[in-house]
Amino acid sequence: MGEIYYLALIKLHQLKKRVTIHDIAKELNTTAATVSRALNNNPSIGIAMKQRVQEMAKKLNYRQDKIATSLRSGKTQVIGIIIPSAKISFFGSVVHGIESVARKRGYRILLFQTNEKYTSEKEGINTLLQSNVDAIIVSISKETTNYDHFLEVKEQNIPLILFDRTNDTLGFPSVVIDDFKGAYLATTHLIKQGYSNIAHICGQQHIKIFEDRLLGYKSALKDAGLPVKDENIVMGDVSIQSGEEAAEKLLQLTNNPDAIFAAEDFMALGALQTLKKHKLHQPGQFGLVGFANESFGQYITPTLTTVDQRNIEMGEATAELFFSLPSKDLYKEGQVAPKITLEPELIIRESSSRKSDK
Amino acid sequence: MGEIYYLALIKLHQLKKRVTIHDIAKELNTTAATVSRALNNNPSIGIAMKQRVQEMAKKLNYRQDKIATSLRSGKTQVIGIIIPSAKISFFGSVVHGIESVARKRGYRILLFQTNEKYTSEKEGINTLLQSNVDAIIVSISKETTNYDHFLEVKEQNIPLILFDRTNDTLGFPSVVIDDFKGAYLATTHLIKQGYSNIAHICGQQHIKIFEDRLLGYKSALKDAGLPVKDENIVMGDVSIQSGEEAAEKLLQLTNNPDAIFAAEDFMALGALQTLKKHKLHQPGQFGLVGFANESFGQYITPTLTTVDQRNIEMGEATAELFFSLPSKDLYKEGQVAPKITLEPELIIRESSSRKSDK
Repeated sequence: MGEIYYLALIKLHQLKKRVTIHDIAKELNTTAATVSRALNNNPSIGIAMKQRVQEMAKKLNYRQDKIATSLRSGKTQVIGIIIPSAKISFFGSVVHGIESVARKRGYRILLFQTNEKYTSEKEGINTLLQSNVDAIIVSISKETTNYDHFLEVKEQNIPLILFDRTNDTLGFPSVVIDDFKGAYLATTHLIKQGYSNIAHICGQQHIKIFEDRLLGYKSALKDAGLPVKDENIVMGDVSIQSGEEAAEKLLQLTNNPDAIFAAEDFMALGALQTLKKHKLHQPGQFGLVGFANESFGQYITPTLTTVDQRNIEMGEATAELFFSLPSKDLYKEGQVAPKITLEPELIIRESSSRKSDK
Repeated sequence: MGEIYYLALIKLHQLKKRVTIHDIAKELNTTAATVSRALNNNPSIGIAMKQRVQEMAKKLNYRQDKIATSLRSGKTQVIGIIIPSAKISFFGSVVHGIESVARKRGYRILLFQTNEKYTSEKEGINTLLQSNVDAIIVSISKETTNYDHFLEVKEQNIPLILFDRTNDTLGFPSVVIDDFKGAYLATTHLIKQGYSNIAHICGQQHIKIFEDRLLGYKSALKDAGLPVKDENIVMGDVSIQSGEEAAEKLLQLTNNPDAIFAAEDFMALGALQTLKKHKLHQPGQFGLVGFANESFGQYITPTLTTVDQRNIEMGEATAELFFSLPSKDLYKEGQVAPKITLEPELIIRESSSRKSDK
């Protein structure tokens, strides 16, 4: 495999009196090449000279041209992250987790948000490749069903790691929680509280996490000997409004449910608004469980029972996974991409509790 | 002023069988230079040839080397935004506003979050400069009191625009809301509701928005003939916990307040937790107003009266301001930087209302 070199004439921003390595060399009576090697910590230069160069560079207020430097080394120490929305606190927390690990290694983070749009996700990949990032971490947008833009990253041999909203068929390393288990725990909890006609507001089924949560819900019902009813499963789109509408539909059923497990907290919040409208929001009247442990859940009334997705740990695991990847043969054919699965945790609050007098 | 050219040997990522302009030229029986000019929409090339080149480029799956292209043109069509935290929905909304305007102009956005840290803000500036962005938009972190990193952006003649958390002494274009007026409206509203001993949880006073909000609070009290009492002003740090603690302090006062105006919604949310602990949270018992119109305010109980900061419009105005800036003499000495001030809006909800029977 050959390496391709580009000879490029780069016109940088117009600068006044910029200090160059030639200025440093002149002051030290040495050559620009020596200064350059010293600044880049080349072993051919002695420690004494390196120190003198560093001191003079500081004195003259020299700034290394990082663009040229990074293009030469091929490393920018920057990781690009593509998330559906910075407004969903889950993603904000995962990013914090990634940052905490990356920072210790001297890496910085650039974020690109897709607003759940496929075209925007494609742009994000291009923008980050153009910024010459060392790796790209992605949680796939709701709209995305074509994945060719990810394959371009693979072609350039740049590490791409998926988290939470992943796709196992693409062959990328990934970090997820056990969504099936989280949904199973949530539904089983409602059953144990005495609810028996439990509905599910599911997410779009082309997204694996929502598919797994639906499967977990069904499996919990079956294991408890309860029927799985199609009319009790209504689809939302991870918005408050879709949760409101889904709950409204469920409350119109002849045999309406006594509890809802929503595949996502924002939909649970919407369902809660509908329950309030129907005066069904007092703890014990109607069971409600969300999924994600969004930050608002502990402040709403009633407080929301939900499934914690181990946000920070997911971020940390994602970053650790990147740093553990081999630098060569990243996408070797026939190689199985590493996948880390974290354990979900049920957070029990008021919205799912039965009053003791019931 | 001279222009500086860099001759750089750029080693890009190792690629297999990458299609080049030479391959396209060969297929079309023309020269690589013609193909390059056609791809870059050079007027010296006819429309017919441009079309043939585009079609062949598509057929051969040619990808333009955007790094080299952007370095040649000096434009990346990318705007970098530095925000304190993506978890504060205000910043998320402003970013959406910026994006909506930027997208129409073919610009994309890269985000960098500082987590309110000064060192991280410096890293953000360096990372974005290294990514060769066309402009940098910043809302200053809470910790920042030294602004030299911003002056480096000025030296490179790259537009830097501040929003919300700004500093007028630095000479950068900026977009803010009238924070004094917002605080004045909030405090006057509590007075009109019949509250007479109104406390203020303020933010750090080296940040101009918090200084202005404190001034607005004081001014509203004075204009209503009410005393401004030092013991009624407690400082928080834009966290839920600091709001809890500040409210606890205020409730310990001998002459404890009957209402709180918090300079920020997260602090108001903290204060509400304390009021709940003291069974003072029923509407009419104790007045509470926040500032920011964070998304949780309409879902908590009681719903939170707050000051809307015109998030989306602030983002749009910030982007429009960037596109209106002159390309030359951006930072000419003696030039006054443009500043846009938006009008705040009071959003009245349950937390500030007096019951009709009181």
